[in-house]
Amino acid sequence: MLFHDDYYKNGEYLEKYFAERGVFLATVDAPPPKLSEPWEDFTSTEKYYEAITSSDGPDVVGSVVNHLDSCHIKRLEELESMPRRTLGSIWWPFVQHGLVKGEKDVTVIDSAYSDFFSITNKDASGESNETSILSPQYDGSASWWTQTVGHAHPSLTLAAARASGRYGHVMFPQAIHLPALKLAERLIQNGPGKGWASRAFFSDNGSTGMEVALKMALRAFNVRQGDHLKNEEKKDLGILGLKGSYHGDTIGAMDACEEGVYTCEWHNAKGYWFDPPTVGIKDGQVNISIPASLAAFSQSNNVRAGSLSWVYDVEGRLQTPLARAYALYITRALEALKQRGGPKLAALVLEPLVMGAGGMLFVDPLFQRVLVDTVRGRRSGSSTKWSGLPVIYDEVFVGLHRLGMESTGPLLGVYPDISVNAKVLTGGLIPLAVTLASQFIFEAFLSDNKAEALLHGHSYTAHAIGCEVANETLSLIDKLSVSEDWLAAQASWAKPDGQPSPVWSLWDPNFITAISKLRQVKEAMTLGSVLAIKVQDTTAGKTFLLVVTSFLILSFTGYTSQSAQTLLQSLNIASQDGQLSSAPGGAPFGIHFRTLGDVAYFMTSLNTTSTVIRSIEDRIWTTLNST
Amino acid sequence: MLFHDDYYKNGEYLEKYFAERGVFLATVDAPPPKLSEPWEDFTSTEKYYEAITSSDGPDVVGSVVNHLDSCHIKRLEELESMPRRTLGSIWWPFVQHGLVKGEKDVTVIDSAYSDFFSITNKDASGESNETSILSPQYDGSASWWTQTVGHAHPSLTLAAARASGRYGHVMFPQAIHLPALKLAERLIQNGPGKGWASRAFFSDNGSTGMEVALKMALRAFNVRQGDHLKNEEKKDLGILGLKGSYHGDTIGAMDACEEGVYTCEWHNAKGYWFDPPTVGIKDGQVNISIPASLAAFSQSNNVRAGSLSWVYDVEGRLQTPLARAYALYITRALEALKQRGGPKLAALVLEPLVMGAGGMLFVDPLFQRVLVDTVRGRRSGSSTKWSGLPVIYDEVFVGLHRLGMESTGPLLGVYPDISVNAKVLTGGLIPLAVTLASQFIFEAFLSDNKAEALLHGHSYTAHAIGCEVANETLSLIDKLSVSEDWLAAQASWAKPDGQPSPVWSLWDPNFITAISKLRQVKEAMTLGSVLAIKVQDTTAGKTFLLVVTSFLILSFTGYTSQSAQTLLQSLNIASQDGQLSSAPGGAPFGIHFRTLGDVAYFMTSLNTTSTVIRSIEDRIWTTLNST
Repeated sequence: MLFHDDYYKNGEYLEKYFAERGVFLATVDAPPPKLSEPWEDFTSTEKYYEAITSSDGPDVVGSVVNHLDSCHIKRLEELESMPRRTLGSIWWPFVQHGLVKGEKDVTVIDSAYSDFFSITNKDASGESNETSILSPQYDGSASWWTQTVGHAHPSLTLAAARASGRYGHVMFPQAIHLPALKLAERLIQNGPGKGWASRAFFSDNGSTGMEVALKMALRAFNVRQGDHLKNEEKKDLGILGLKGSYHGDTIGAMDACEEGVYTCEWHNAKGYWFDPPTVGIKDGQVNISIPASLAAFSQSNNVRAGSLSWVYDVEGRLQTPLARAYALYITRALEALKQRGGPKLAALVLEPLVMGAGGMLFVDPLFQRVLVDTVRGRRSGSSTKWSGLPVIYDEVFVGLHRLGMESTGPLLGVYPDISVNAKVLTGGLIPLAVTLASQFIFEAFLSDNKAEALLHGHSYTAHAIGCEVANETLSLIDKLSVSEDWLAAQASWAKPDGQPSPVWSLWDPNFITAISKLRQVKEAMTLGSVLAIKVQDTTAGKTFLLVVTSFLILSFTGYTSQSAQTLLQSLNIASQDGQLSSAPGGAPFGIHFRTLGDVAYFMTSLNTTSTVIRSIEDRIWTTLNST
Repeated sequence: MLFHDDYYKNGEYLEKYFAERGVFLATVDAPPPKLSEPWEDFTSTEKYYEAITSSDGPDVVGSVVNHLDSCHIKRLEELESMPRRTLGSIWWPFVQHGLVKGEKDVTVIDSAYSDFFSITNKDASGESNETSILSPQYDGSASWWTQTVGHAHPSLTLAAARASGRYGHVMFPQAIHLPALKLAERLIQNGPGKGWASRAFFSDNGSTGMEVALKMALRAFNVRQGDHLKNEEKKDLGILGLKGSYHGDTIGAMDACEEGVYTCEWHNAKGYWFDPPTVGIKDGQVNISIPASLAAFSQSNNVRAGSLSWVYDVEGRLQTPLARAYALYITRALEALKQRGGPKLAALVLEPLVMGAGGMLFVDPLFQRVLVDTVRGRRSGSSTKWSGLPVIYDEVFVGLHRLGMESTGPLLGVYPDISVNAKVLTGGLIPLAVTLASQFIFEAFLSDNKAEALLHGHSYTAHAIGCEVANETLSLIDKLSVSEDWLAAQASWAKPDGQPSPVWSLWDPNFITAISKLRQVKEAMTLGSVLAIKVQDTTAGKTFLLVVTSFLILSFTGYTSQSAQTLLQSLNIASQDGQLSSAPGGAPFGIHFRTLGDVAYFMTSLNTTSTVIRSIEDRIWTTLNST
């Protein structure tokens, strides 16, 4: 809204300019000069106001008000129409549309800030809530495990705009731009690749990053074998891994896992997968659950651990009877596999510490350590030359402090030959993945024959926005890693003697202990920003299941229990206790969360405040106790 | 640089603020009051200047100058160090690092704007050019076929920042945000899906988009067959396609193509691929080259066409003997495949009009039309229910006006059941892909069983930045499609009678005719923004090969010819003719271009000005004539 101006004629110029950009412009006469006599000034001003608001004249002010009204009405109409239009045009990932009952099953996200979505508010009947159109909803899955510093973080937005304005996207083969170079150097020299990696290969998501990793490992293995395998033998090269692994949705990444409900017609499981021992807390006691196939070696199907810090002191546990049992079990299984003519193994592929999509399975880190050691055999000193099989760490979910540590190599005490990072890499803003490789893997592709190069690359490989946002994210995480919130959380997880623990969590240890004692909870577990609650499967008895719509359906039972729907509503719906909440604006908020089979998980950003986390803990505690 | 201010103390506040952001701040005393006596004022001012620049005092001005100098030196040092650091950390896509001879083989891109990179300048010896540190380089591959409105377009940057600031990324299953909804609706109702598609499924790049398409087709086929296939039979379901197809780098997308040098150990070619007839111009004459296997039916291995507009009038050619020959050839081949127990075919997968990565092969559109018709058999009226096999159009490269038309369905006269778009979709800024599907494909996944849903989805599915940038891109293209540049180009390609041609190009028809008459040119061809020049393979004779580093190495010969290196330099190096160039700033510019075997291709953005295109044509003409 401008004052009319005969000299500069801004209105005339800007009308066209803004019209092209869809912005409404109105020009109104300037107010009369200020008169020294108050009454005259008042009369003159009143007359002016009457003139610009009179419905007899052009009524500029009225047109502005009408415009704003119509904008507001349009916005409300659009919000209201979105569920219907969505159900008519969108094919969601991992959603059975046949189970979507109607518009009330569509969450309309109007915006998002920090850890909260702003969603259109609905009461239990699905009707819009009359008292408020929008309300906050806690993003308890960190938007599929991507959120790092909260939604719409201004530093990441500025980084994206900076790279977009300077480069757009520029092609990458035999070229370089600063954001990509800095990111590669940071990851190799002072990040997850520190001490073992020499090269960074960029792609677009965890799945493509893993396909690149698999291509690297298969070639490296093949070259080491003297490249004498026939094509049919190459096709059948297998992966050694763990049951419950998940490395992404593309068909090649899927072939590195067992067959399951999520595999497609072309799926061809190539490899052998161990049943792993897992870590969990029940009744305040940390346990390692030993699978049946392994129990014969360990002479127990449950090992009681003193504390989490003991479990994750991998080096300290290497000489225990359990480590020897693991080694014997692995050796025997591999020998048996060979004897019965199983697949020729070409790579060991692990999700270190936690298998995320497979059900938030916290694997005993000692088992993974022993597995790597067994596969590699003796390595000469500190060489990073791979032996036995090339080892791939899929750190897409677990890496970059999601579990409280930048990378899992230092904790496990063994480093991979190839690793993959994505998700947190770009702070939860845009897709980007990186596959890191050791010099020895890189050299398997080196020759003077172009056909032997790694012939993989997506159009937007190493896109500048992704790389710049990743650099900014890593820099923000550096600051967080020395923040008071993190230091306080780490202190709360210290050993009884006050020494730092190798692992810690943003979730409160007393809260974990408390919920682990509830009868409805089979097991609880946490590392970093992740909280997993495995619930008792009481399908046949009194119902309790924290299950909504599962990211992946595995072979869990009780998946469609009605009781889950009941419990879902109590967490999803904004709690109205009359107090200001920890959400922006203090409004009551619902909690969005997702489940994997009988496991409900909750995830924070890396900078979620302790106030917000405490309030989520309270809500979970109350909900669990009210069932 | 601030004036010292005791009252507001801005300097004190801002020093900390800017230090956190890496910005240098200096505070200098304010100038003395202006004196009425000129001489006194002069003396007072002189004294002030001396005080703030004296090396005896704090020398604030000196520190600012020093800071600027050191910034500049650091910037130059960084630019100079980038090739070395790149060779020590980056693993490039599609590059044989063993053939990279040293730092001079690294293109350092300092920034990019419109159609030009700004690269560090090097003379032929690889040493930095003393006269200028940076020079423009025309992005002649449109950065792997992505550039749409030029690098760093402000509207796209604003769109990216807008979505980032409002949403960041928000999770997508059972949720919706406006950028994704608008994009889905636009693509389905008024875009490539118009008239046949009902659903949009988002993923991250063309390759993942095609994996989604394959999963859709395989399931739809399987369900239609009554879902009685055994697992082993499902694994072996095959794709019907054309030789030279390329659908992306992930292993599943690769399995829909024949084996080649770019396939990895796990590659398993599933299907049958026809040798297609192709379109090209030689000596000003448009020809259709018929492959040997087809020539027996067409009774000719070369069909002379009156014009490009005749070739692409698919409907008008349906009753020609060639169409009948195509149909007979296809039918016989499919019968023979069945008789010899070939793979059970589950989908027809085509790159309509042009197979890009396979060598810029311009396929006779009539062949693709007849192939679709033959596979589908009779369809009842205007039904969009698939028959025969589900048909997938891979429009990742050809779609969204890259070839001058939004989608290829209207030209071919037949629409797919599934299609994929990417690349141009986001205007050349960030990765995003969309797989469109008909209602009948969608319904093959509908049930009350979650295990039967399409269980595919990447972390950043339908990320808000990608969708918002895509919406902005499509809106910019809408404006371009009625621009004077496009109307003029379309007029230049009109039929002799002045009627519009079904196809057109931003390249000049007279230029195409002229280069097609050169002895060094085996064939030229153009559609939309794409120019392809197939060169005579004279490896044994006098050398000419427009080959640099190939995106893909196919089975072409002469790939490593030395003469290619010679010719490369003449186009890559900035031409110094003393005139202002069409690059920003008018500096002399080099031309970056890429090749596919014996085909050199040049690509413009959709808004590249005719001035720039004419200057590129001149440079190509001069280079071709100087060999």
